[in-house]
Amino acid sequence: MKLSFLLALFLVMSSVQAQNIDKEVISSIYSNALQSTAAYDNLKVICDSAPGRIMGSEASEKALNIFYSQLEQLNVDSLYKQKYKTSVWFNLTPAEAHTIYKGEKHDLNVVTLGNSVSTAKKGIQGNIVEVHSFEQLDSLGTKALKGKIVFFNRKMDNTHYRTFDGYGDAVGPRVHGAAKAAEYGAIGTLIRSVTPEINDYPHTGVNVYKEGVAKIPTLSVSTRDAEKLSDILQHQPETELWMQCKTETKEAVETYNIIAEIKGSKNPEQVIVLGAHTDAWFNTDGAHDDGAGCVQIMDVIRIFRELDIHPNNTIRVVLYMDEEETQTGASQYASLVEAKNEKHMAAIETDTGGFLPLGFSIDAPDADIKAIQSLCTVLSDYGIYEVGKGYGGVDIAPLKEFGVPLIGLETNSQRYFEMHHCANDTFDKIVRRELHLGAAAMASLVYLIDKYGIQ
Amino acid sequence: MKLSFLLALFLVMSSVQAQNIDKEVISSIYSNALQSTAAYDNLKVICDSAPGRIMGSEASEKALNIFYSQLEQLNVDSLYKQKYKTSVWFNLTPAEAHTIYKGEKHDLNVVTLGNSVSTAKKGIQGNIVEVHSFEQLDSLGTKALKGKIVFFNRKMDNTHYRTFDGYGDAVGPRVHGAAKAAEYGAIGTLIRSVTPEINDYPHTGVNVYKEGVAKIPTLSVSTRDAEKLSDILQHQPETELWMQCKTETKEAVETYNIIAEIKGSKNPEQVIVLGAHTDAWFNTDGAHDDGAGCVQIMDVIRIFRELDIHPNNTIRVVLYMDEEETQTGASQYASLVEAKNEKHMAAIETDTGGFLPLGFSIDAPDADIKAIQSLCTVLSDYGIYEVGKGYGGVDIAPLKEFGVPLIGLETNSQRYFEMHHCANDTFDKIVRRELHLGAAAMASLVYLIDKYGIQ
Repeated sequence: MKLSFLLALFLVMSSVQAQNIDKEVISSIYSNALQSTAAYDNLKVICDSAPGRIMGSEASEKALNIFYSQLEQLNVDSLYKQKYKTSVWFNLTPAEAHTIYKGEKHDLNVVTLGNSVSTAKKGIQGNIVEVHSFEQLDSLGTKALKGKIVFFNRKMDNTHYRTFDGYGDAVGPRVHGAAKAAEYGAIGTLIRSVTPEINDYPHTGVNVYKEGVAKIPTLSVSTRDAEKLSDILQHQPETELWMQCKTETKEAVETYNIIAEIKGSKNPEQVIVLGAHTDAWFNTDGAHDDGAGCVQIMDVIRIFRELDIHPNNTIRVVLYMDEEETQTGASQYASLVEAKNEKHMAAIETDTGGFLPLGFSIDAPDADIKAIQSLCTVLSDYGIYEVGKGYGGVDIAPLKEFGVPLIGLETNSQRYFEMHHCANDTFDKIVRRELHLGAAAMASLVYLIDKYGIQ
Repeated sequence: MKLSFLLALFLVMSSVQAQNIDKEVISSIYSNALQSTAAYDNLKVICDSAPGRIMGSEASEKALNIFYSQLEQLNVDSLYKQKYKTSVWFNLTPAEAHTIYKGEKHDLNVVTLGNSVSTAKKGIQGNIVEVHSFEQLDSLGTKALKGKIVFFNRKMDNTHYRTFDGYGDAVGPRVHGAAKAAEYGAIGTLIRSVTPEINDYPHTGVNVYKEGVAKIPTLSVSTRDAEKLSDILQHQPETELWMQCKTETKEAVETYNIIAEIKGSKNPEQVIVLGAHTDAWFNTDGAHDDGAGCVQIMDVIRIFRELDIHPNNTIRVVLYMDEEETQTGASQYASLVEAKNEKHMAAIETDTGGFLPLGFSIDAPDADIKAIQSLCTVLSDYGIYEVGKGYGGVDIAPLKEFGVPLIGLETNSQRYFEMHHCANDTFDKIVRRELHLGAAAMASLVYLIDKYGIQ
């Protein structure tokens, strides 16, 4: 009995000691991150030098070179490009649109939606039909829509505390609006920007055509102009819309993911992967989406190196290509994992903006979620309270089929859709301390998973 | 036994029902706040019309008029001015300073510290002694300091997750530096701005002289210029500093707090008070400090009115004068409470900026803290996780002696000291949703305290 008491005491004391060591390490991670300017400075270079870095563009090439050289300076154990070829889409000129009523024109703030075809060279013109839902579109049918331009004026619900909760409902028309309207003979679509605020920025994003259905040009209009247009149509329903855009698709363009590693000292074959995406829409500097994520995960490596933390397992950073369009980079990386039959302990993605980190959103079996929650209790001192079931991220999603726990960094979402896919997503909106807290939160979680596993 | 089982079931069901009603009410409070633009619009008017609204100034008079008329529009049950007379301090001209070395001058970004006396009309000039602490000052003594200008270059520790944790240590020289240096015969002081970031904004704040010790002029210098000056002194220790400021103190100037109420339907004599301060330093628009707080607590009234919530107890809003200098408004209000022997159920202050609300910081007996924590569990759906022991606020502090639980709204502090008491605290740094979430958090807490009390 005495012996078992001593053993119990020893175990408790070991556990307390381990917790104290963890607290110290995590404190040093946060302290380092809060004093550093590295990620912030790296992001400034990217935003200044490579805005609009959509896949396949010159800006993308420039961004990839910058990220690669930033990683080279981190003394990583391995660094390489995972090259592949894919078709790429370009917006060649800024889209334009205006209303016409009795010869009078009013310009609208618009942007081409991703994957849109071009209009005729001189643009297209037609009467406007305003709708708020697909149901309304269906009820109108071909008779009302043929030859018309459909204006989807679906508002994003701004009453959710977590702004992402309003996204799913609002984004439908942007993704499928053109294909649906084309089925009824519409000649083009104009989509209200997916953001809960009223302002002048048109927001782009992916549009997906349907096989066998005509591809019609599709633009996004700022929320303020959507409100104005709706108002105009109330009073002057015969108002016409003119719109113009010019795009191009090229086949078999080479691009790549960038992959960097600190090799594990005990189990180098076991990987904890951190992901973010280098591409950003043509109309934005991509500061929060997702330049922030890229510099944060690179900063995890910097922190490990500077604090001389030697992980047991391999810590890998993947700077993904093409999150914004067809996630070819994500597929490529997943193929690599499958081909090498690699064991991944966890995949962590950061793509919700470089805002104040609030938690981790986990896509994994309940037991894994509980284990990660337990690891994260020490992070409540740093505002990490929201650790629970949720979505991991677009780029790490293909790893789910290999049984990898997927973990998304969750940040303060209040400003996210002010900046999402629009010209407002600039470096001056980045708060150094918040950006670096995100890096510290992920570095801490990586440290804990590396040490204890998810069990 | 059967009866007691039924009674227990009834009590459990009543409790569940009450919780559901609370959840619904709180959801409607947040929904209302997130859709509204009221507080945001009110704040814009204040920042545009009455920047630099330090007590006794024309800008302050303008701000008070605006706030009063904003409250008039809220259909409150009572609204009045608590007038009083006090001495007021003014900064008459922007402070100036430059280094002089071999005839070459370099301008520094400076601002007068609150309560500073004027320099001689043509300014003062002298050799500079850089110190980092009061201990260092003491060890240098009169011999080294007499006739000199003391440059306090104490850095604010930027490694704290909660930035306020670094304030206490850094603010000493700003408050007491002039008095301490004067005891050793210094002719002026230049204080490094109290902010963890390196930038060009000089931050002001209160300076307190010591009775019987000479009052010497004292300025604050931006952190970037503090770094530069320190560097200059390393290489050219004989560099001199010239500085100039012009200030004035007037006696017996009339000013006031504004007090508005919704009368309680059951216990009108019991008060839940919400406080924020209308004054802001002469060099700032005071958007976050504390224009945000003022429009938030007025918005609590708007929300109650719009949602037709009739409180049992009186909900009172106090827009305090003079938080920044000598808290005369706070004393005046406390005197009123004492004179009328009023019962206050709780006092809630918002003065940490209109950032994302994270919790409530409570100065009260442990049992009250537990009771408030219990009330707040329903607010974790809205990111209110940090509810615990802490500081309530400067303006409500005098109510402590009457046994009132003091509650401070706690917000994301990452940007607070970027803006604190400097020209960077402008309306464009306000995020509508975050500002309104603060109002919603306080409205919800007021609703819960009004319904259940703190027990």
